[in-house]
Amino acid sequence: MSHDNRSPLGPPPKPLLIVLSGLSGVGKDTVLAGLRQSGLPVEISVSATTRARRPGEKDGLDYYFVSGEKFQEMIDANQLLEWANVYGHRYGIPREPVRQALQKGKDVIVKIDVQGATTIKKILPQAVFIFLATSSMEELEQRLKKRRTETPAELDLRLKTAGKELGIIPMFDYIVINRQGEIERTIADIKAIITAEKCRVTPRELDI
Amino acid sequence: MSHDNRSPLGPPPKPLLIVLSGLSGVGKDTVLAGLRQSGLPVEISVSATTRARRPGEKDGLDYYFVSGEKFQEMIDANQLLEWANVYGHRYGIPREPVRQALQKGKDVIVKIDVQGATTIKKILPQAVFIFLATSSMEELEQRLKKRRTETPAELDLRLKTAGKELGIIPMFDYIVINRQGEIERTIADIKAIITAEKCRVTPRELDI
Repeated sequence: MSHDNRSPLGPPPKPLLIVLSGLSGVGKDTVLAGLRQSGLPVEISVSATTRARRPGEKDGLDYYFVSGEKFQEMIDANQLLEWANVYGHRYGIPREPVRQALQKGKDVIVKIDVQGATTIKKILPQAVFIFLATSSMEELEQRLKKRRTETPAELDLRLKTAGKELGIIPMFDYIVINRQGEIERTIADIKAIITAEKCRVTPRELDI
Repeated sequence: MSHDNRSPLGPPPKPLLIVLSGLSGVGKDTVLAGLRQSGLPVEISVSATTRARRPGEKDGLDYYFVSGEKFQEMIDANQLLEWANVYGHRYGIPREPVRQALQKGKDVIVKIDVQGATTIKKILPQAVFIFLATSSMEELEQRLKKRRTETPAELDLRLKTAGKELGIIPMFDYIVINRQGEIERTIADIKAIITAEKCRVTPRELDI
């Protein structure tokens, strides 16, 4: 046995790419903010988006808020690991910060919509896929209404899409229920998944 | 989505059978005692053994200490899930308490030597296999010497066997390093593995 961090059989475990996804309105941003505050030693990828900033959101922390032209430039220069149109706005994951963090041996969390997660699954199947869910569809509806950022028509579309997107869950490795008022438990579950993944005997081989 | 405990897609997750194994001397019993004290809601299987009780060990808690004849009766009546000769003594896992706990929906931890774990893997491949390791072979040797329960010849045999048994690690799902003086971390890692396993999208199908 060697003296390295985890395995007595080989080099230290490879860094993880954790893909955090879930239906629109499930609370992905709140969970990410909680993970950031929890002092977890992971790099949290900041996405670029063309959508308008919501109250309280900070450029460069919650998102990089960019124009449609700038976003197109990033696509053309192949600077995005993945990008998609979600409800009329573009969202993308800048590739370089993710690659650099992984190369330094740091775990990375990327937040992405469900469709985007299926794309990442194709290009990086060895990432850790976590589906964040509410405990019921009713709770999802309440959350979206409370957010007050969608028009009634937009809300309706999101809920219809949600029903379809649930079929994608089997693609994920883990499902974490983000219960109303129990954000600490959600964060503890995600941390436990990261800890357990680091104990895996068979490491995930990321190729990014 | 339904309102059950974990998955919005189906029934609550099935209970887990956690197989905790590792080289002789790595501290399996100490870790189990720590898990028991931590209030983790799992059933910890008590093995039957023909070996002599060590100071501080309690019958029915650490082991069921039985005679060779009684052990043979248990084998003959098919009451043991698995049994083996380990360093001249017999060890076995009583089947009924494990089955009953799982049927009640309770997770069960069974502690077993490395050879026994390979047997369990054949009969219950969907169990969660955790290999407990020291951070180095030197540490394992120190632990065994400190225990003072082996003669020098027995100690030598255990260390030789240890080298061979390391080749079995790839059979396990997880490896947890039980660092000297960091039992709390070991226990936290095992708890994290249990939490993560309960978040798995694809449940393990135990047939016991």
